[in-house]
Amino acid sequence: MQEDIEMEKFQITILGCGSATPSPKHYTSSQIVNIREKLFMIDCGEGTQIQLRRSKVAFARINHIFISHLHGDHCFGLLGMVSSFGLMGRTAPLFIHAPKEMEPLLAQELEFYCNRLEYQITFQGFDPFAKEIIYEDRSLTVETIPLKHGIPCAGFLFREKPLADHLDREMADFYKVPQWDYNRIKDGGDFVTEDGTVIPHSRLTKPAGPTRSYAYCCDTAYNPKMFDQIKGVSAIYHDSTYMETELVQAQKYLHSTAAQAAKTAAEVNAGKLILGHFSARYLNEQPILAEAKETFSNSILAKEGMEIDI
Amino acid sequence: MQEDIEMEKFQITILGCGSATPSPKHYTSSQIVNIREKLFMIDCGEGTQIQLRRSKVAFARINHIFISHLHGDHCFGLLGMVSSFGLMGRTAPLFIHAPKEMEPLLAQELEFYCNRLEYQITFQGFDPFAKEIIYEDRSLTVETIPLKHGIPCAGFLFREKPLADHLDREMADFYKVPQWDYNRIKDGGDFVTEDGTVIPHSRLTKPAGPTRSYAYCCDTAYNPKMFDQIKGVSAIYHDSTYMETELVQAQKYLHSTAAQAAKTAAEVNAGKLILGHFSARYLNEQPILAEAKETFSNSILAKEGMEIDI
Repeated sequence: MQEDIEMEKFQITILGCGSATPSPKHYTSSQIVNIREKLFMIDCGEGTQIQLRRSKVAFARINHIFISHLHGDHCFGLLGMVSSFGLMGRTAPLFIHAPKEMEPLLAQELEFYCNRLEYQITFQGFDPFAKEIIYEDRSLTVETIPLKHGIPCAGFLFREKPLADHLDREMADFYKVPQWDYNRIKDGGDFVTEDGTVIPHSRLTKPAGPTRSYAYCCDTAYNPKMFDQIKGVSAIYHDSTYMETELVQAQKYLHSTAAQAAKTAAEVNAGKLILGHFSARYLNEQPILAEAKETFSNSILAKEGMEIDI
Repeated sequence: MQEDIEMEKFQITILGCGSATPSPKHYTSSQIVNIREKLFMIDCGEGTQIQLRRSKVAFARINHIFISHLHGDHCFGLLGMVSSFGLMGRTAPLFIHAPKEMEPLLAQELEFYCNRLEYQITFQGFDPFAKEIIYEDRSLTVETIPLKHGIPCAGFLFREKPLADHLDREMADFYKVPQWDYNRIKDGGDFVTEDGTVIPHSRLTKPAGPTRSYAYCCDTAYNPKMFDQIKGVSAIYHDSTYMETELVQAQKYLHSTAAQAAKTAAEVNAGKLILGHFSARYLNEQPILAEAKETFSNSILAKEGMEIDI
């Protein structure tokens, strides 16, 4: 019963973490969130399908794509990827969650360039100015986080639902709980032995660990309005396009500095800060990391191919 | 007077030569034709701008882009590249020559995603079923070559105009021809000395070399209909998606085998055959080359980053 002991998977794979245009160093924005082997893609800049093929990601299992906003470096890879999925024989439906303004043009593009797909694409538009749950399953919700950017732009908050308690295997064996009854007990049930004794739920289980969460806040100016929503998040990926020396640029283009990303992580009491969306002007990104660490020590630099466990 | 002795530049740079989808080995179709430092792009698959940045191509000097047909692997990089040109401060107008069906959707995409460009884009639609000159300047024409593919698809024939004769510098000095008169004489004029003697043009010049030409026939089944048009071409880039062992596939998808590419090169008496548009199924492409060389010995395999002098 491995799953009762180990934490289940909650992992981010970075496919691209550069800003604006692909550079010799970085691809534009895209990443994969793997939660218990369900795969979600966030953003899909040009070249995402190339990065996917290079990664170990089992891309046939991506069923949901979340697009944060309609700047090309976050969505110009979508048509090519969708088209390649078709050529590679995909049949599973694909859901694209994106700002609702995208729908009419995307529908035309799909009709023009991808009209022979043998799988269904369902567009689910959202309002980037609203905080709303746009995806939910048995174990997870995804909420939009309104960000502060040049065009309507959302972040995404992936949050595990509270887990069932873990079964205490030794106690279950001791009381001869049959395997088929495990889930009922993990979900809160008591157990009645053959002689009628009631063994309470609490005796047969150990409390589950805390739930985990991940906030993707990729293109945003410093944005205190989102703090309440992401309070206590396990990890945050935050815009750190610039350093403080380029604060004027950051303000002009509604991006953040590494110091602002770190201040955000500290304010919301995040477990970890992942810095990304780097401007191509920085050939060496260590100073970006150093700037963030002054305020928030558990900071790391995103990098193409990196896998981060939440 | 170097330019009277050396051949002027006529060079192809391969940016992508894979088919269908980007693979770990190849980018999708795109290449640069450099004719006397005027740069032309042919096709623009996803990731072309990434390849451009990696190459030594001075991409600010690309003023004309030719799109052969509207399969994604030949045009999905266009929006991203056009958008990046804008971010990088381009002001020079850009001409996009493509099948005319592309215009309405491209106009919408540009309006939606690239509405702040500070340079002008002019779309010049063509009919892929017609043989017509779609570009012409003082020294060059570009003609469409109707190909045989699943959707309307053109090749492009780049052809130098006949060059002016070369000046024979020794004879010009001997007769004291003034420099300002050189071009008139190269263009066919005679020279009259101070004492009234007529020195005929033929005495002052040497005939120019033959004109050069390049045919890009990227996505096509074996297509004898185009042979007359490209007879004697200096170099041909020809579809060799498959080998003869996959002839059935080639016929089904209206692509060619390496043997068919070679047969074409031989039939039109081409100077050189460049094999490209490789299927991702071939991990080793040497057998493709070997198959072509059986019929046409001056064959080479295209490769990303390769520069080929015509």
